[in-house]
Amino acid sequence: MSLNDIRVVLVSPIYGGNVGSVCRAMKNMGLRHLAIAAPRGALDELEARKMALHAIEVFDNRKEYPSLAEAVADCGLVAGATARPGLYRSHSKSPREWAPHLIQAAKTAQVALVFGTETDGLSNDDLACCTQIIRIPSSPEYPSLNLAQAVLICCYELFLASGTFELPGELSPEASGAMREKMFELWREALLSVGFMKGDKADHMMMGLRRILSRGTLTEKDIRILIGMARQVRWAGRQIQPHSKPS
Amino acid sequence: MSLNDIRVVLVSPIYGGNVGSVCRAMKNMGLRHLAIAAPRGALDELEARKMALHAIEVFDNRKEYPSLAEAVADCGLVAGATARPGLYRSHSKSPREWAPHLIQAAKTAQVALVFGTETDGLSNDDLACCTQIIRIPSSPEYPSLNLAQAVLICCYELFLASGTFELPGELSPEASGAMREKMFELWREALLSVGFMKGDKADHMMMGLRRILSRGTLTEKDIRILIGMARQVRWAGRQIQPHSKPS
Repeated sequence: MSLNDIRVVLVSPIYGGNVGSVCRAMKNMGLRHLAIAAPRGALDELEARKMALHAIEVFDNRKEYPSLAEAVADCGLVAGATARPGLYRSHSKSPREWAPHLIQAAKTAQVALVFGTETDGLSNDDLACCTQIIRIPSSPEYPSLNLAQAVLICCYELFLASGTFELPGELSPEASGAMREKMFELWREALLSVGFMKGDKADHMMMGLRRILSRGTLTEKDIRILIGMARQVRWAGRQIQPHSKPS
Repeated sequence: MSLNDIRVVLVSPIYGGNVGSVCRAMKNMGLRHLAIAAPRGALDELEARKMALHAIEVFDNRKEYPSLAEAVADCGLVAGATARPGLYRSHSKSPREWAPHLIQAAKTAQVALVFGTETDGLSNDDLACCTQIIRIPSSPEYPSLNLAQAVLICCYELFLASGTFELPGELSPEASGAMREKMFELWREALLSVGFMKGDKADHMMMGLRRILSRGTLTEKDIRILIGMARQVRWAGRQIQPHSKPS
């Protein structure tokens, strides 16, 4: 699984809590290799653990390198994230645009995602180590994302592009046309029996009910619930003495 | 701008830091209306401020409601995020699938995104207030995202679906075919002049160079740099005495 092998490189991160959040975001999206380039000294491990929670092994297995150049020396593709515009930063693409390319490249080469320090982002020297530039879409009113949030967006796009995720989906299958018709027939009888509608208006009222119940999916389980309700209503309608029914 | 009006509702959040991170994520993605349903008491404002940074006005302008039902009483569409599978949760779709639908609905109705408490997520009672269920794609090894991370992914998808973001793009226009040909012609002369290739191999070598320089965009600015290099190389080649050239 190539996604697994994509490396996240943080350049000189300041806050242990952020690094812990990065670990959780990575594991949430199926990544596990964390590298710290040019560390500032010891990170606050307590904060890191608090935010990493069940992804603490990503933190514990991190690798440290004296410089970014050393952290990506074996990488064929090095994608750096920057929110700042400017010289050297104009060839950027969004994470969604880069993701399929990075996933493809990861099949034959080491791939790194690089993120700068919390306060300043990537420097021009850092960008010189990058082969591609990522610009995360964000509002011009506040374009700069928290470090772990930036990592999350990039990992999320890689995770989706890797095609490994499928929504669990509905366990009960979609109801057949025959089941739906049986259900509507029971409701027609039920609504007639309680005097909600009379024979000549029934078709019109039933169209309204059909419209309401046909806007989304109707599973076999849904139909069984609706049939149960209709049967009980029909039963109740049949208990009523004819002379007591509303006109 | 409809995106602006979509409300983020947090049910009984515990950590001020998370709520601050939610505020930053919202403002990063162009949202601003935060509601807290069923608050547990005072949030840690210091932590909230530390994480919200320049989005602190989202925190300061938050509204509080005694219950989720009251927080979404005026909403036509209420989308709840849940990572847990189970009964009542099977009709989920991903944020990317829901986003265009929510953006569309926000043009005519109040729309809310609802997130549960950090420890437990949304309860079944909370889900009863929701008209749609969002399931954020995540790894089965660690499916549960941090609260602010979950909010970010949903807001990011809404932001992209709203179509308000455009990458700043390359300022220098793409070079014309004529500029590219002029550049390659200068490089041919330059490489011949320094003896890198001889007449009969020149076409072959130039094809290699064309391939290398045609893999991505080449802007007018790029071409000017490449032309400047070629001219200088050609000049250097012409300074060399004929007898000193490599054979």
